[in-house]
Amino acid sequence: MACEKKRLAELAVLVQGELVGDPEVLIGGVADFDSAGDGEITFVADLKRGARLDECNASAIIVPSAVTEIGGPAIRVKNPYLAAARIHALFVEEPFVATGIDARAVIGQDCHIPTEVAISPLVYLGNRVRLGQRVTLHPGVVVYDDVVIGDDVVLYANVTIGHECQIGNRVVIHSGAVIGSDGFGYATEANGHHVKRPQVGVVQIDDDVEIGANTCIDRATFGKTWIKRGAKIDNLVQLGHNVVIGEDSLLVAQVGIAGSATTGNSVVLGGQVGVAGHIHLGDRVMIAAMSGVHNNLEPGAIVAGIPAISHKNWLRASAAYAKLPEMVREMRELRRKVAELSRILTSGEDDSPAN
Amino acid sequence: MACEKKRLAELAVLVQGELVGDPEVLIGGVADFDSAGDGEITFVADLKRGARLDECNASAIIVPSAVTEIGGPAIRVKNPYLAAARIHALFVEEPFVATGIDARAVIGQDCHIPTEVAISPLVYLGNRVRLGQRVTLHPGVVVYDDVVIGDDVVLYANVTIGHECQIGNRVVIHSGAVIGSDGFGYATEANGHHVKRPQVGVVQIDDDVEIGANTCIDRATFGKTWIKRGAKIDNLVQLGHNVVIGEDSLLVAQVGIAGSATTGNSVVLGGQVGVAGHIHLGDRVMIAAMSGVHNNLEPGAIVAGIPAISHKNWLRASAAYAKLPEMVREMRELRRKVAELSRILTSGEDDSPAN
Amino acid sequence: MACEKKRLAELAVLVQGELVGDPEVLIGGVADFDSAGDGEITFVADLKRGARLDECNASAIIVPSAVTEIGGPAIRVKNPYLAAARIHALFVEEPFVATGIDARAVIGQDCHIPTEVAISPLVYLGNRVRLGQRVTLHPGVVVYDDVVIGDDVVLYANVTIGHECQIGNRVVIHSGAVIGSDGFGYATEANGHHVKRPQVGVVQIDDDVEIGANTCIDRATFGKTWIKRGAKIDNLVQLGHNVVIGEDSLLVAQVGIAGSATTGNSVVLGGQVGVAGHIHLGDRVMIAAMSGVHNNLEPGAIVAGIPAISHKNWLRASAAYAKLPEMVREMRELRRKVAELSRILTSGEDDSPAN
Repeated sequence: MACEKKRLAELAVLVQGELVGDPEVLIGGVADFDSAGDGEITFVADLKRGARLDECNASAIIVPSAVTEIGGPAIRVKNPYLAAARIHALFVEEPFVATGIDARAVIGQDCHIPTEVAISPLVYLGNRVRLGQRVTLHPGVVVYDDVVIGDDVVLYANVTIGHECQIGNRVVIHSGAVIGSDGFGYATEANGHHVKRPQVGVVQIDDDVEIGANTCIDRATFGKTWIKRGAKIDNLVQLGHNVVIGEDSLLVAQVGIAGSATTGNSVVLGGQVGVAGHIHLGDRVMIAAMSGVHNNLEPGAIVAGIPAISHKNWLRASAAYAKLPEMVREMRELRRKVAELSRILTSGEDDSPAN
Repeated sequence: MACEKKRLAELAVLVQGELVGDPEVLIGGVADFDSAGDGEITFVADLKRGARLDECNASAIIVPSAVTEIGGPAIRVKNPYLAAARIHALFVEEPFVATGIDARAVIGQDCHIPTEVAISPLVYLGNRVRLGQRVTLHPGVVVYDDVVIGDDVVLYANVTIGHECQIGNRVVIHSGAVIGSDGFGYATEANGHHVKRPQVGVVQIDDDVEIGANTCIDRATFGKTWIKRGAKIDNLVQLGHNVVIGEDSLLVAQVGIAGSATTGNSVVLGGQVGVAGHIHLGDRVMIAAMSGVHNNLEPGAIVAGIPAISHKNWLRASAAYAKLPEMVREMRELRRKVAELSRILTSGEDDSPAN
Repeated sequence: MACEKKRLAELAVLVQGELVGDPEVLIGGVADFDSAGDGEITFVADLKRGARLDECNASAIIVPSAVTEIGGPAIRVKNPYLAAARIHALFVEEPFVATGIDARAVIGQDCHIPTEVAISPLVYLGNRVRLGQRVTLHPGVVVYDDVVIGDDVVLYANVTIGHECQIGNRVVIHSGAVIGSDGFGYATEANGHHVKRPQVGVVQIDDDVEIGANTCIDRATFGKTWIKRGAKIDNLVQLGHNVVIGEDSLLVAQVGIAGSATTGNSVVLGGQVGVAGHIHLGDRVMIAAMSGVHNNLEPGAIVAGIPAISHKNWLRASAAYAKLPEMVREMRELRRKVAELSRILTSGEDDSPAN
């Protein structure tokens, strides 16, 4: 365990929450509501489900500020989810251990490697690689020539970082991710053969970015593909050459963004979303899972569908879609009725069925 | 070859089929209808295509029980596809060869490794890893600390198994798959920064599961992500934290399932299907390729579309969709006609065109 | 740098373009319009944006033949994009350096390896692998038994090539790609258990193919999965067993093609497209991003949507889709009006509101 037990009062101060009940309760971990036991704190993020401590076996509970009936020791906070994440990190985050460079790692020439690193067996570093302090490289990691990596970075197993790419501080990249593969760019000859356009740019990943397993981020054709501070990218995401992802953005798994598309800050892209090349998504844009965006979006836009329309409109349109077969029948019926009415009216009174 | 030639009569017994013709025909392999040659058996799964042995060069044929005109030695069975798979496996499955632990593999401390294993060069095992009998680890496999692996498991090249994950018996995982990467979970501060929620659960994979290349299965936030017995998962699939996949389920390539979604047994998810978080798909649910499911589904439901509706209704709705431009025109025409009729009727008899 | 500075006149000859201005201008590289500087050539691919050399800092410019007002030294060509790619390659392509076989690579028995190769540390070659001239294998590459690889092939980090697969000349495969994993094929027992169908075919990749990072290409059940000459495949693409991709085809990222589907030559599949099994796409078919194709397509077809319809019709249908909620309202209104008219007409004159 990364840290010793803490008094509930200390934890309340840590998350700037309001202490309820016995300040001396000792807490040693965080668990979810159903499995938490003695010595653990749990949390409820919303009020829809039971929030009473006496309904579970935890020793304390983190609840939204509005909750008054708690049934035991608690911390009241605005955002229990956030408070729980902070307290949990306190208990589980392991301190960095500088194991140095394993003899079975392969290190190129003229690398800059501080003493305080942890480089596993079967890691490969090319030439002139520069590592920051407390970098952890897991087995199978391949770092090509001239890469620069900041402090406190963790690269999990079998991650590849292409030549000259730049990784900021506190970046975490999960297993199998490929940073800096060539962009997909070709020029086509008259005979249909495709000639590769050299991809001479890099990928720059700024501080506090996390990147998921088997995600691919292509290097720029010219210049850089750029993931800005604090962006969080899930597994199996594809980012094309020259893409720019704004700060604090969230990209859920299997998103694909085509070349040269850019986003503002704090955008949220649901799973399997597709974004066309050369467009811009403004700050705080939200795109529903599986949507496809082909046009620029204004800041704050919330969209869904392929092609994406406003989420509000999409909810109505997709409901109507399910009723299209019915609409087709109604339309046929209406046509029949109108033709009938028309026949009656235009044929004069004498032979109309109304007579 | 894994086994010697077999008499057709033996093969018929193996698959509980009815022997037709010469029981002494010697068979040494399985091939498809067009390429099978002398000494091989072939099969026809349905009756739409030619099923006559004399239309191909095989020495025998597996046919559905209903087939009577065969033209040569044959095995009649209920499910020729299944019988061919069983007979084929007999001929091609190589017996396990215990090559032991290659000197160029990296093995951690306090591992439990039986004598009967095959651990390739460039494999990395962390500390306290426990392997079952006859485990095969291919080059580039990375197994983190405290992983438990059952008997007769095969991990292909560059597979990663995260710490503490549990793999059952006869599990096969294809190259590049990542089991036990962190779930995608963050709490967001008032300033928009995302704070990582520790992901302290594991992945449990039960017996007879097969997992495709470059597929990612995230560990649980708390508890476990769970793939139950006999589930078969294709390439490039994404399973979020705390997902549960029921027994004998089939997940086709590029499926994505968000956190905490669960399925019953024997569900079938087509390629590129997306499933939202925290929902449940009942037993035997079938989802058409590229569909998106946002709600719980009853056992046996067959759905399609984004958002998914009943497959039957989707077939009609999507046909109508293609005719939407026409419907728009018809609607305009109807509006025009109705307005005209209305004008005639409400303006009185004297100036109506009918007069 | 791969080559020395060139005179503009030489470059014009190389790309069969028309020289404009000083033939003696020395060029040492290619850059994009905004960042090009002294000694570099840039290009404009279309006339919509500024094409005048005096609007940028490059020493020369490649322009479409139609451009007359240039403002400095230039090359006029039919396809500036293509000319720039060729000239760029001239400057950046590094000559092959035969570093031989690193002592920390693992080489199987009876391999055929020419002297002129570059095999990195931590590469694994199985038995009886045959390499062509000037093959480059990056760290973490795993090549299974009996693979044949042609001349001038580059396999980037952590690529896996399954046993017996065949790779042509000048093939480039990016990091983490998996060639020759098992196809996804099972036969199902009466009790719902799935029995694996042996996957005994191979993958054949012809000359001049490029394959993206973390892409998966399954081996055939019988016979071969086949990527023909000059096809270019992006990242995270899934190709099932027995798929055939025609010459010079382009598959954008995250495309998924199910088993036994085949394409003609020069097809273009947009990002995240899904193609059903056992269908054929004719030559030059184009499929819009995120579309799903379930039926054969004639040569030259351009389609979009799920299920895919003609692109032209899809543009209209998707525009109508966004207006479905409006259509529902209009339909209701029409029904109301028609009912009203009908009531008037059929109730006779005396009590109609028109009186």
